[in-house]
Amino acid sequence: MPSTTLEIRSRISREGELKLWLEEVPLPRPRPNELVVRVEAAPLNPSDQILMFGSVDMTSLRASGTVNRPIIEGRVPPERLAVMSGRLDLALSVGNEGAGTVIAAGSEVTSLIGRAVAIRATTGSYAKHQIVEAADCLVLPEGLSARDGAAAFINPLTALGMMETLRREGHSALIHTAAASNLGQMLVRLCRKDGVPLVNIVRSAEQVTLLRELGAEYVVDSSAPDFMNALVVAIESTRATLAFDAIGGGTMASTLLSAMEAVQIRKLATYSRYGSPVHKQIYIYGVLDPRPKILDGQFVLDGQFGTAWSVGGWLMSWFYNKIGTADAARLRRRVADELRTTFASRFTAELSLQEALSPQAILAYSRRATGAKYLITPHTGTP
Amino acid sequence: MPSTTLEIRSRISREGELKLWLEEVPLPRPRPNELVVRVEAAPLNPSDQILMFGSVDMTSLRASGTVNRPIIEGRVPPERLAVMSGRLDLALSVGNEGAGTVIAAGSEVTSLIGRAVAIRATTGSYAKHQIVEAADCLVLPEGLSARDGAAAFINPLTALGMMETLRREGHSALIHTAAASNLGQMLVRLCRKDGVPLVNIVRSAEQVTLLRELGAEYVVDSSAPDFMNALVVAIESTRATLAFDAIGGGTMASTLLSAMEAVQIRKLATYSRYGSPVHKQIYIYGVLDPRPKILDGQFVLDGQFGTAWSVGGWLMSWFYNKIGTADAARLRRRVADELRTTFASRFTAELSLQEALSPQAILAYSRRATGAKYLITPHTGTP
Repeated sequence: MPSTTLEIRSRISREGELKLWLEEVPLPRPRPNELVVRVEAAPLNPSDQILMFGSVDMTSLRASGTVNRPIIEGRVPPERLAVMSGRLDLALSVGNEGAGTVIAAGSEVTSLIGRAVAIRATTGSYAKHQIVEAADCLVLPEGLSARDGAAAFINPLTALGMMETLRREGHSALIHTAAASNLGQMLVRLCRKDGVPLVNIVRSAEQVTLLRELGAEYVVDSSAPDFMNALVVAIESTRATLAFDAIGGGTMASTLLSAMEAVQIRKLATYSRYGSPVHKQIYIYGVLDPRPKILDGQFVLDGQFGTAWSVGGWLMSWFYNKIGTADAARLRRRVADELRTTFASRFTAELSLQEALSPQAILAYSRRATGAKYLITPHTGTP
Repeated sequence: MPSTTLEIRSRISREGELKLWLEEVPLPRPRPNELVVRVEAAPLNPSDQILMFGSVDMTSLRASGTVNRPIIEGRVPPERLAVMSGRLDLALSVGNEGAGTVIAAGSEVTSLIGRAVAIRATTGSYAKHQIVEAADCLVLPEGLSARDGAAAFINPLTALGMMETLRREGHSALIHTAAASNLGQMLVRLCRKDGVPLVNIVRSAEQVTLLRELGAEYVVDSSAPDFMNALVVAIESTRATLAFDAIGGGTMASTLLSAMEAVQIRKLATYSRYGSPVHKQIYIYGVLDPRPKILDGQFVLDGQFGTAWSVGGWLMSWFYNKIGTADAARLRRRVADELRTTFASRFTAELSLQEALSPQAILAYSRRATGAKYLITPHTGTP
C-alpha cells in the first residue's frame, strides 16, 4: 500500500480565480471499517463538472504546469461569486463516484481485499486511491470490472429513485426531460422492464431516432412546431401526472403542468375556476438551463394549470436518506443485479488524471453532448 | 315559503361579452336533508369577484337595465378568453358563502327551522334564498346574527387550514404575504392564540402600523429598501420554513425561499453545493399579482435556495377533502366557537343585490383596498 496518492483539486479564490491541479496527498491506514480502493474508473458526470468548474467563464481557461502535473486556471465573473460563497478559498476534492479494487482493509472488513467495488466518494473519486467506509461501497458481482461499476451509484440510483417516488406518491406514469441523456436511456430501459409508461422529451429529431431505436414508445421533440400538441397527446395516452425535469430553467416546468392540466380538465363534469383536483407534480433535479424558472398560470381563469400542482427540487441523496436504510439497500441490490443490463453505461473515451485537465479534453467533455460520456481512468497515463 | 327567488348571475359569451344581472329563479321544495335559507348577509371575497368579472377589462364596464333589475356589461380581451373556455356561455350563479335564517326544511332536518346558519354555497349565495344540504351548514351559536356568520367559511377555514398544514408537515413557524388583508389579520389572532410565530409581510408602512396595533410581533415591509435583510432577521428569529403566499406572481416565492435558505445554510458545518437539507415550502393560495411566477436559483452554485424546496398551489376546499370529515368537523366547530373573537370579520359597507351591480359600488369593492370588505345584504333595497 503506497503512503501517498494523487487527486484532482479545484479551488476558487475570493478574487474569482479558479485553479484545477493534481495534489499529492497522504494515504492514511484504513480504520477498522474502512477500505483502501485503487480507483480504476470514475465517470465525469455533469454534477462533477459543476463542482470542478463552478461558474467559471469557460473562454477564460488557460493551461500551465507540466505534462505530469498540469494546471488549469480561469476566471469566475464577479457577479457569480456571491452564490458560491460557501466554497471560496477551499481546495475541494472532486469526483462523486467510481470503482476499483480493494488493496487494503481495516480489521473488520479484510474479507473484501481483492474484490472489485463501486464507491460513492465523499472526498473525491478523481484520485489514484480512495479511503471509503465499507458500508458506502457496492461489492460488484463476480466477473464485473471497475469499468462496469464506475457509474453504479448516481445515474442508476437516480433512475430507481424516480421510480420509487412515482410508486410512493401514487402516480402511474412518468415524464422525463433531457431524455436522450445517459440517465434518460437508463430510464427507458427501467420503465420498460417495470411496465411504467414513460413520456420522453428530447430536443432534436436525432434524439427522437436515438430513443426510438432503444424501444421508447412515447418520444416528444421540444424543438418541433407541434410540441405542445404532441405532449398533450402523449400525456392523454399515459395519464402522466409526474415529471422529472433536468432542464430546470425557463418555462419547461410550466409547460409540463399546462399539458397535464389540459388532459385532466377534459374529465371534469362541471366547470371549476380552480381547475382539476388531480395533483400534478414536477421535480427539478438538474440545471441544464441556469436561467430562472418561469411558472405561468395558477388559477384557470388567470392561467393554465389550475391549483393542484407542485414544483420542487429533488436530490437523489436526500431521497435515499428519507426512505431509510432497508429500502435503500434493496434498491442498491437491484443496481448490482442489473449493472450490465438496465443500468449499463457506455463511455465515449477514457482520460488519465492528467488528460482530464487538458484544454482539449475539457473542451470535449464540457460540451455535454448527447450520448457522450467520459471516464477518468487514474492508473493510465503518466504517474 | 316563496315559489321564486332572485340571484346574481354572471355570463361571459364566446365573443367575450360579460353580462351581470339579476335572475328570477324557481325556489323548489327542499329534499329531506335540505334547508331553505333566507340569505341575509354574504361577503364579497376576492375569489367571488374573480368569478363575477372574469378577466374583463374593468374600464369597459357600462350599466343598463332598471333600478330594480340593473345590468352590467363589459368586454373581455380576446387573448384572455382561451383560459376561461370552461365557463364561456354559462350563466353562473355567484357568491361562495353567506348566512341567514332557515325558513323551511326537509323532513329529516325540520329541527333547524328558525335557526341562523352559515352556508357554503355551491350554487351562489348572492341570492335572496338558497337551498343547501344541512351537512354543508354551520349552525350559528345562540346570539350570533347572520352578519356575524356571513364570512364563517372561507377566511376562517383558510386560516385554520394553514395552521393545520403547518402541524401536519412539521413546521414550527409561518410566513404570510399580503398580511394586512382580512385573512391576514385573522391569522395574526389565530397564531397568537396558538403560540405559533408568524412573519407578516405587508406592502406599506401604514400596513406595518395596522398589524403592530393588532399585536403582530414580526412585520416586514416589502416596499422598504432593507426588505430582504429584515426578512432574513425575522426568519432567523422564528425559524420559519413554511410560507403561504397570496401574491402568486412575480418573484415573491423565490425571495421567500432565498431568505429561508440564507438562514438554514448558516447552520451547515461543511460546504455543500446542494445547499441546506432542510425542506422549504411555499404554498401559493391567491393571485393578487397575475404575472408569471419567477423562481431564480435551484442549486447553490447557480442561485440561492438550494435543492430542498417546493412551491405549490394550495386550495382550501381540496385541503379539507384531503384531511377527511372528522378533522374537518373539528376545525368547523372551532370556527363556530371563536366567530366573534379569532375569526371575526368587520365590514366597510353593506350593499343590496341591486347596489352590488352599480358602477359606483363595483368601483369601490373591486379596488380591494386593505381593510375594506363589503357585505351583500339581499333583503335590503328594492325587492
